[in-house]
Amino acid sequence: MSNNMVADHAIRPVENDTIFTISAKASEAVLKYGAENVINSSMGVLLEDNGDFVAFESVYSYLKDLDNPKIAAYASIEGDSDFLQAVKKACFKNHMPNAYIEAVATPGGSGAIHHAIFNYTNIGDSILTSSLYWDPYNTMCVENSRKLDTYNMFNGNGGLDIDAFKEKFDYHLNKQKRLLTIFNTPAHNPTGYSISDEEWDKIIDILKQGASNKENKIIVLVDVAYIDFCDEKFDRRAFMEKFAGLEENILILFAFSASKGYTMYGLRNGALLCVTSKEEIAKEFFYTNLHSNRGTWSNGTKGAMKVLTDIINDENVGKPFYEDREHYVKLLRKRADVFLEKSSEVGLELYPYKDGFFVCIPCKNPLEACEKLMKNNVFAIPLQTGLRFAVCAVSEDKCMVAPKKIKEVLAECDE
Amino acid sequence: MSNNMVADHAIRPVENDTIFTISAKASEAVLKYGAENVINSSMGVLLEDNGDFVAFESVYSYLKDLDNPKIAAYASIEGDSDFLQAVKKACFKNHMPNAYIEAVATPGGSGAIHHAIFNYTNIGDSILTSSLYWDPYNTMCVENSRKLDTYNMFNGNGGLDIDAFKEKFDYHLNKQKRLLTIFNTPAHNPTGYSISDEEWDKIIDILKQGASNKENKIIVLVDVAYIDFCDEKFDRRAFMEKFAGLEENILILFAFSASKGYTMYGLRNGALLCVTSKEEIAKEFFYTNLHSNRGTWSNGTKGAMKVLTDIINDENVGKPFYEDREHYVKLLRKRADVFLEKSSEVGLELYPYKDGFFVCIPCKNPLEACEKLMKNNVFAIPLQTGLRFAVCAVSEDKCMVAPKKIKEVLAECDE
Repeated sequence: MSNNMVADHAIRPVENDTIFTISAKASEAVLKYGAENVINSSMGVLLEDNGDFVAFESVYSYLKDLDNPKIAAYASIEGDSDFLQAVKKACFKNHMPNAYIEAVATPGGSGAIHHAIFNYTNIGDSILTSSLYWDPYNTMCVENSRKLDTYNMFNGNGGLDIDAFKEKFDYHLNKQKRLLTIFNTPAHNPTGYSISDEEWDKIIDILKQGASNKENKIIVLVDVAYIDFCDEKFDRRAFMEKFAGLEENILILFAFSASKGYTMYGLRNGALLCVTSKEEIAKEFFYTNLHSNRGTWSNGTKGAMKVLTDIINDENVGKPFYEDREHYVKLLRKRADVFLEKSSEVGLELYPYKDGFFVCIPCKNPLEACEKLMKNNVFAIPLQTGLRFAVCAVSEDKCMVAPKKIKEVLAECDE
Repeated sequence: MSNNMVADHAIRPVENDTIFTISAKASEAVLKYGAENVINSSMGVLLEDNGDFVAFESVYSYLKDLDNPKIAAYASIEGDSDFLQAVKKACFKNHMPNAYIEAVATPGGSGAIHHAIFNYTNIGDSILTSSLYWDPYNTMCVENSRKLDTYNMFNGNGGLDIDAFKEKFDYHLNKQKRLLTIFNTPAHNPTGYSISDEEWDKIIDILKQGASNKENKIIVLVDVAYIDFCDEKFDRRAFMEKFAGLEENILILFAFSASKGYTMYGLRNGALLCVTSKEEIAKEFFYTNLHSNRGTWSNGTKGAMKVLTDIINDENVGKPFYEDREHYVKLLRKRADVFLEKSSEVGLELYPYKDGFFVCIPCKNPLEACEKLMKNNVFAIPLQTGLRFAVCAVSEDKCMVAPKKIKEVLAECDE
C-alpha cells in the first residue's frame, strides 16, 4: 500500500513558490542594508518609487462607500448580469469583435485559465504556449493532468517565431484533433512582448488552415492580464476585431483579470469570455462554465464586480479611475524606457519588450545569475531561459542603474 | 464529428438554478401582492424581519477601515499565515482535536469541498452523503467526473440512520478501497439536523472498523458551513475532539465557511482543514491543496482573511462582532422555535430540526407541493424528498402562520 492519503493524481512536490522565496530574501536585505541599497524586482505588482503598494484610491474609496449588502451578498453563480455586460466592454473596449460573445465571472485571470484548460481539453492533452511563459500555466496543466508544451518564442528579428509556433500547432492538432493554445499578450509576462497585428494575421491564417479539417477543434486562449497597462497610443486591442467571422471550429477565449488594471489583485475579480461565429457555441460556453463555477468555487466577489461595473457604466465613477490609471501607466512607461535605454548603453541584451510590468534578460544560467545578483542586492526571478526584472516594482532611479549591475554579474556567469 | 467545442466530459445541461428561479418568482409576487402577503423562504441567507439583507456592521465597518493595500494586495497562495492560524481557532474553538492540523484558504466552503473531492478521490469514484443533501455536492461530483451516492438519512426515531450509513460505507469502501464521506453537520442544509455526540461515536466505530484493513483510505469531510448559527448552549463543537488518536488511514477534513457565520457570503472566504494522527499526512494535505489553489483560482480574498484574523485575535475587534452575531443567533432560534411549535400544533410533520437556517418538511411530491404553495404566495425549495423552508429569511410573524398554510397545501397534494 502507499502511504499517501491523497489520490495518486494529487501527489505534489513539497516546495515553496520561487517568487515568494526570493521576495523574502529581498525583504531581509532591505532590513540589513537599507531600502536605498536594494533593488527588489521580484514581485509582479505595481509599487510606488518608495516601495509602497499601489492601490488606486478611486477603486477603494468607491468600494468602501458601497452599502454593506452590495459587498456581503452572494453574486450570481455566473457573475452578476450587469457585471457580465460591463466586463465585455472592459475587455474589448472599442475593438469588440463582430461575433457571439459571452462571459462568465471568475476569481481573477487564474480562474479563467483554469476553466479554459479544464473544459476545453481532455486529460493527457498537450496545451501549447511560448517557450517563455508564466509558470502557473504549467501548474494548472499538471493540476488537471494535462501537459504543457512550448514553441520557441522569438525569431532572430525580435518578433514572434511564427514558424516554430506553426510546427508545434500542426503537430499537436494533428495528433489530438483538439488543441488549446495560450497567448499571453499584449504585455507578455515575463518578457513584455506584445504580438503585433501583422503577427496576429499570420497566426489566424495558421488557425484557419487547421480549421479546414472539420474534425479539428481549435481553441485559443488570449491571456490579457496586463492589457490595461499598455499605453493607449499603441492601440493594443486592435487585433481583437480580427476574431470576427472565423470558422465554427475555432473558438477564441479571453482571460480577463481586474488584478492589475484595476489594482484588485486581492479581491479576486476576473472573467472568461468567448468569441465565436456560432450562437450555440457561445451558449455552450456559458452553461459549461456556469457549471464549472458552481462545481469549483461557486461564485465570485460581489463588491469587486460592482466596482468594475460602475467604473465602466458611470462616468462619475470612471473619470477618477481613469485618471488614477493613466498616472501609473505613464510612471510604468518611464521606468521601462529608462531601463531599455540604459540596457542599450551598457550592451545588456533584452528580449523584445513592448509593454507592461516586466522586462526579461536572456541568460544561459538563470539560477546561477539570480544567486549572484542577490549577493549584489539585486533581486530578479530566474525563468526558463532568462531573468525577469519587474519594472513595475522598481523606481526610475533604480531602473537607471540596474542594467549595468546586471550586465556585470552576467559577464561573471556566462561562459 | 460532434458539434461541441467543449470536451466530452464538460458537456452540461442548459438549465437555470432552481433556487434562483423560485426566488425570482417570489420577488414578482412581492411586487404584485405586497411584501406582507408573501412568505419568501427560498434563499438561504439571513434576512431581517422586513426582508433586508443582514450584513454584520462590525464586519463591514472593520473591513472598510482597513488600509487599501490590506484589501488590494495578493494573499499568499495557501492563505496568509496569520489567517491560517486564526481559522483553526475559528473552526474548532475550545474543541481543538489533539492531532496534526493544517489549513489552506479557499473561496468559501465550496472551494474547500472542491479540493476534498478533487484531491482525495479518483475519477469515477462514488462519494457518500445522506439522502437529503445540499444539491451542489452533486454538481461538484459531476463537474469532476465523480458520482454521488446516498444512504437513507433518518431512522424511525428521529435520529441518523446509522445502519443505512454503515451498509453504503462498507459497500463502497470494500469496492473502492478509498472513500470520501461528506457529513453536513451541525445545522444540516436542508434539514437543520445536527449529528449527536453519541451518533458520532457510532460513526467513528464504523470508520475504525473500515480502517482495520490497512489498504483502505477513509476520508471524512465535515461541512460546518452553518456551525456558527448554533446556539452556544448546545456545545455543537464537542464532537471535534473525538478525532484525536484515529488510525493513520483515517483522515478528517473540515470545510469551513465564513459566508454565514461572518456574513461574508460575497467575499468568498473559507478554508479546508485536516485532522490526522500522522504528521506526514498533514504535510501532504498542505502541499497538495497549496498546489490545487495555484492550479485552480490562485489565491483568496485578502481583506476578508484579515477581518476574520483580527476578529479571532483581537478582543476589540471580536467583541462587537460576537455581539452582532449573538443577536442574530437568538433571532434565528426564535423563528425556528415558533415554526416548530406551530407545526406541532397543526400536525405538520418535519424532519428532525436541531439548529440553523433551514427546516424541512417531508413530502411525497415536492415539485407539485412547491407549485401549489407558490399559488398561495409561499415560496419554498423542492428537494429530494421534502420542501426546504428557510427560517433564516422569514420573520417570526410569518413563521407563525406558515406551518398551517403548508399543511393545508400538502393535504391537497398527498394521495
